[in-house]
Amino acid sequence: MKLLLLGYGAMNKRVAKLAEERDHEIIGVVLKSEKEDVPYPIFTDFNRLPEADALIDFSHPDLTKTLLESDVLLPLVIATTGEKEVIVSKMEEKASYLPVFFSANMSYGVHILKKIVEFATPLLASYDIELTEKHHNKKVDAPSGTLVKLYDAIKEIKEDADPVYNRHISTVKRSENEIGIHSIRGGTIVGEHEALYAGHDEVITIQHKAQSKDIFANGAIDVAEKLMTMEKGFYTYSNLGDE
Amino acid sequence: MKLLLLGYGAMNKRVAKLAEERDHEIIGVVLKSEKEDVPYPIFTDFNRLPEADALIDFSHPDLTKTLLESDVLLPLVIATTGEKEVIVSKMEEKASYLPVFFSANMSYGVHILKKIVEFATPLLASYDIELTEKHHNKKVDAPSGTLVKLYDAIKEIKEDADPVYNRHISTVKRSENEIGIHSIRGGTIVGEHEALYAGHDEVITIQHKAQSKDIFANGAIDVAEKLMTMEKGFYTYSNLGDE
Amino acid sequence: MKLLLLGYGAMNKRVAKLAEERDHEIIGVVLKSEKEDVPYPIFTDFNRLPEADALIDFSHPDLTKTLLESDVLLPLVIATTGEKEVIVSKMEEKASYLPVFFSANMSYGVHILKKIVEFATPLLASYDIELTEKHHNKKVDAPSGTLVKLYDAIKEIKEDADPVYNRHISTVKRSENEIGIHSIRGGTIVGEHEALYAGHDEVITIQHKAQSKDIFANGAIDVAEKLMTMEKGFYTYSNLGDE
Amino acid sequence: MKLLLLGYGAMNKRVAKLAEERDHEIIGVVLKSEKEDVPYPIFTDFNRLPEADALIDFSHPDLTKTLLESDVLLPLVIATTGEKEVIVSKMEEKASYLPVFFSANMSYGVHILKKIVEFATPLLASYDIELTEKHHNKKVDAPSGTLVKLYDAIKEIKEDADPVYNRHISTVKRSENEIGIHSIRGGTIVGEHEALYAGHDEVITIQHKAQSKDIFANGAIDVAEKLMTMEKGFYTYSNLGDE
Repeated sequence: MKLLLLGYGAMNKRVAKLAEERDHEIIGVVLKSEKEDVPYPIFTDFNRLPEADALIDFSHPDLTKTLLESDVLLPLVIATTGEKEVIVSKMEEKASYLPVFFSANMSYGVHILKKIVEFATPLLASYDIELTEKHHNKKVDAPSGTLVKLYDAIKEIKEDADPVYNRHISTVKRSENEIGIHSIRGGTIVGEHEALYAGHDEVITIQHKAQSKDIFANGAIDVAEKLMTMEKGFYTYSNLGDE
Repeated sequence: MKLLLLGYGAMNKRVAKLAEERDHEIIGVVLKSEKEDVPYPIFTDFNRLPEADALIDFSHPDLTKTLLESDVLLPLVIATTGEKEVIVSKMEEKASYLPVFFSANMSYGVHILKKIVEFATPLLASYDIELTEKHHNKKVDAPSGTLVKLYDAIKEIKEDADPVYNRHISTVKRSENEIGIHSIRGGTIVGEHEALYAGHDEVITIQHKAQSKDIFANGAIDVAEKLMTMEKGFYTYSNLGDE
Repeated sequence: MKLLLLGYGAMNKRVAKLAEERDHEIIGVVLKSEKEDVPYPIFTDFNRLPEADALIDFSHPDLTKTLLESDVLLPLVIATTGEKEVIVSKMEEKASYLPVFFSANMSYGVHILKKIVEFATPLLASYDIELTEKHHNKKVDAPSGTLVKLYDAIKEIKEDADPVYNRHISTVKRSENEIGIHSIRGGTIVGEHEALYAGHDEVITIQHKAQSKDIFANGAIDVAEKLMTMEKGFYTYSNLGDE
Repeated sequence: MKLLLLGYGAMNKRVAKLAEERDHEIIGVVLKSEKEDVPYPIFTDFNRLPEADALIDFSHPDLTKTLLESDVLLPLVIATTGEKEVIVSKMEEKASYLPVFFSANMSYGVHILKKIVEFATPLLASYDIELTEKHHNKKVDAPSGTLVKLYDAIKEIKEDADPVYNRHISTVKRSENEIGIHSIRGGTIVGEHEALYAGHDEVITIQHKAQSKDIFANGAIDVAEKLMTMEKGFYTYSNLGDE
């Protein structure tokens, strides 16, 4: 697969390295202006990009918007976060004649964690659910975006779900529709998410652990491999097909 | 729900206690002969059993066969292990005019664990799978019957799966189709089962922990509650309906 | 060992059963008045108790105080909670001529968990610490008493420790002296406690899981076995000797 | 701290990067001959090395022996594996006039895991012990060297310990002196080690998880920081002082 990269920050550097290890070719990097230390051809004219099988974007909304306003005709894998509304709207335009994939979390495993939780939750309707995530001590927000996604997925199924963030002040027992949400912070933990279902004398847990940010880079490459064979359309992990 | 019990060993004693806590009524115990210390009416004539909503059998093949050869007309929840072939054949006859449920593991959670593993395995096709179970130090067989069931479920999906029980003698790296199987034994652990899926820098684990044998008794009561409303037929957890 | 029991509630019923399984003898139960369904001799005159190797008390402060005001001369294992100050003062009087043991949590494993945490914390001085406990959905207080004990043990070592119960409202990163405290509630979980130490790219966790309340009964029996050989004095797990 | 590095393979590249992030200075790399792509001064004359606060060696026995036969006068942190006997003997000579540190596993957390296990094992004398390690699917040996170290530490305390690598063939229950040893292999798992102690209805687990090989590089830097202030002598984690 011949890949173009939009942006060359920490994530796309990993994409380049991992893609080459997987025998793909990086034919160039798309940037607004020349930049040192990029070991690939640089393209700054968004309207004259070279042929490629797909473009992977781990950049920022400014670059992404410029791309989506250009006449680019490549399958697009967009992993930029921020200005979601504007960018989704522009992606939908492009998707009328190109395959365009978007996810704010490119980890395939996290996507599957969410699918398993959606599968298990109705089967374990009488079980108490608690969600826990662990991240490094520099993370400022809590709970994590991925945990919020898991909670939202459960809320779709258990409509009366009620998040509880702090039991310290409580003096009453747990209500059935409570979903405890716990954010553990420490060291350099990359990211762990766990859904715990507790019933009468049995507990089921479903857990995802990330060991490095490579899971986002590899996720984008995996998506690009699929997207290059797809018809035009707007794709997410929900409609790209897992198998 | 009015329940009859076949046998009055450790498991059916718990069924009686938990059923009463759940506001069901134990109308009697079916035995081959009178027995002391049974705090319910005893019925020894298998052809003249009283009216009930369901019968729960945690006994042994001898009693179960006698039941299945009688003219019993109640919904039957059969949880006896041993002589499986003979008993299943007799259950299938009964099932032509009665609802009959059979499972060698009455835990609903274990059943759901297996369903989640069946759901997750094809989605995680490129991940390495390892299975681990933990049980008390008195258990003589390894791996546990439940782990064998999980392995069989995976083998249906990954046909080239190859179980590995001992890596100590190995000097080669793991092959893709290996499934490591690990049996931890210690103390009085009731039972834990875990499927681990390891990919590139991410790991998904699905785990079930049993805290007491009540999960089997409660599972049987749950099934009886459903079975009393069902048509004739031979049921297992696969076709009883989970929701 | 010949044991007397003070009180015959759920806990001392288990003590009786487990002690007999361990080949000890229950020579009687001490109560304020006769009670049905006690399968042992009942003693209601606290000043005329029979000979025994030890007395185990899982009752309530009222009974415990009456015992401590009597002329009892047996080694005493006191596991009653409530009115701690009064009872400790009376125990200290008794301890001037009898061996008296007191703990509000008779689990030996929980005691060892605390000792391990006290051992590990100074060795892992630069690691972030987070504490998590899991209990059943009927528990009204959070965090658990045992977790508070663990926190207090850490606070002795890290004097600037600062407990954090809720990160949901936070928008700043974790401070070094924070200790996150997490209370998970669900199903019938008997009790789990975990101390997590997170450093640079490595995490150490120390965890205790209780499977049933038998751990408290067995803990009391273990203590009684030791106490019957001890000199007069006031003992806790800290000075009874572990080996 | 001014550091010299012996060798410039994957590990010492990380040492250089992490040391600089920690505001140390890499004053050069010691090699047998010039090498491209080393962004530091190269020193090839082992008898004329520059002044430095310590030297960190992640190389191979050949280079290490050359170093130990030279007239080097720096505090030495030796993390090379292989030819242990010869190298230890040469280190001991050097240690008669220099501080020399040696460990085949530079992770501080793994060292502390071992210390915790040594602390906990005698306290949990009646508990069953099982050891589990998880590593990536490329690892050819099992169990891991670190697990063997843990086992050896336990064997010092429980002299009749008996390792069991495969329960599949067994039809008898666990013996008291068994120590089950389990090697899980999958994906890119960097390394996890767990000691499980199972008693009557309670389980204590002590676990270490490595997230990247940085733990070895950081461990070496931590040791160098201490070693530069030490007297001559042969040091390991056991006598370097943890606090």
